[in-house]
Amino acid sequence: MQTKFYVVGIGPGAPELMTPQAHAALQEAEVIAGYGTYLKLIKPLFPDKEYLQTGMTGEVKRCQLALEQAQAGKIVAMVSSGDAGIYGMAGLVLQLAEGLPVEVVPVPGITAASSGAALLGAPLMHDFAVISLSDRLTPWDKIEKRLLAAAEADFCVVLYNPRSHGRPDLLNRACQLLGRHKGPETPVGIVKNIGREGEQAIVTTLAELDENLVDMFSTVFIGNSQTYIQQTVAGLKIVTPRGYLEEAAQ
Amino acid sequence: MQTKFYVVGIGPGAPELMTPQAHAALQEAEVIAGYGTYLKLIKPLFPDKEYLQTGMTGEVKRCQLALEQAQAGKIVAMVSSGDAGIYGMAGLVLQLAEGLPVEVVPVPGITAASSGAALLGAPLMHDFAVISLSDRLTPWDKIEKRLLAAAEADFCVVLYNPRSHGRPDLLNRACQLLGRHKGPETPVGIVKNIGREGEQAIVTTLAELDENLVDMFSTVFIGNSQTYIQQTVAGLKIVTPRGYLEEAAQ
Repeated sequence: MQTKFYVVGIGPGAPELMTPQAHAALQEAEVIAGYGTYLKLIKPLFPDKEYLQTGMTGEVKRCQLALEQAQAGKIVAMVSSGDAGIYGMAGLVLQLAEGLPVEVVPVPGITAASSGAALLGAPLMHDFAVISLSDRLTPWDKIEKRLLAAAEADFCVVLYNPRSHGRPDLLNRACQLLGRHKGPETPVGIVKNIGREGEQAIVTTLAELDENLVDMFSTVFIGNSQTYIQQTVAGLKIVTPRGYLEEAAQ
Repeated sequence: MQTKFYVVGIGPGAPELMTPQAHAALQEAEVIAGYGTYLKLIKPLFPDKEYLQTGMTGEVKRCQLALEQAQAGKIVAMVSSGDAGIYGMAGLVLQLAEGLPVEVVPVPGITAASSGAALLGAPLMHDFAVISLSDRLTPWDKIEKRLLAAAEADFCVVLYNPRSHGRPDLLNRACQLLGRHKGPETPVGIVKNIGREGEQAIVTTLAELDENLVDMFSTVFIGNSQTYIQQTVAGLKIVTPRGYLEEAAQ
């Protein structure tokens, strides 16, 4: 017998940013698995489910336990914040499900690049690179190479996991690398706790960026050479133009 | 008086991939503006709105007309497919609203990188670059530079606008550039008509990619050096591992 295993991106946390498809998958599931912080956001919406709660690390064990439930015939949903397919659990579940009679169904969610950009204005209107600064699973020299390549080719850059307990200096090092090809006045946006209590959006520049403003729940946006900061009735916003006005003026 | 102007990402088109926040913004709006194809998806859900329909190009004019409605005191929502902040209208609306008593409120949506990745499996579990192949607003040499940089730094790559009427050869040229640093066996995924009639996901490789499979409604995913194709109970899927299994094996 073949059972479904949903890997569900719940978005940044607020129910109004979770898609109806994600809601339906959680509704259909008998067991909901995931990291405690995310389950806390889900439980009030689905109080009658069986929950499989685990710590932040130990991802392999967590997925294996959840897959055992699926093999026992239960419909499982594993939740990731943001999009389960972007630094989430979709890949690991697929890998571990190889050869098992389990259908892995990824359900997309709003990732921090999208939800954070909306709070900041429109920083990602042009080509962009998404880079995680976590060196737990990726050698730092690979991260470094990607930062330099993205900066040199004038990508907008979105940094996930910009700060960790053990390595508080990662963001400063990343900004130094980006600064080799991006000017000090390049707009930088920091968003924290998107769609949750304590939501905050900060607009600054590469030169002025204070890494103490950035925590583990932050996402950092760095503009390209065209990006600018615009005063609006709702405060400072970051805009990366895409060339429509230049085209219209021709 | 200050009025709200929502720039709403409606996701790929299926109502189950539109967030409740996007739904609420459209509900609140008095005027809904956008390209005809997208409005057709929205009208059945909100039959009693005033609609401001325009062609595919002429974006500046379209935004100006919609901003005039906002200045006349009406709550306006302009829709983009996917995420309004990723190759959508959020930036242009902000630019054109400069100095006006209009509060521009971007509402994030599920972009094709997320929705397409979910259909393909988990191709974007590691750092990735999003690049539009449209050279209407961007010089081709800039696009070329970004393709090469992304390939050299071993990013996964997502290509938006991989085909246009006037330039059918863009995708082949892009793949040749990517192929300077990515092997011929690199997995490639093509998704079409996500969440709509005719939805299709194709798994192939850089060497085997047939650009005739790609149309204007497609998004193309190219793996990094670790990406592989996995046989599953639901067919071939693309997986980019993130290193959890290697870490656990240590």
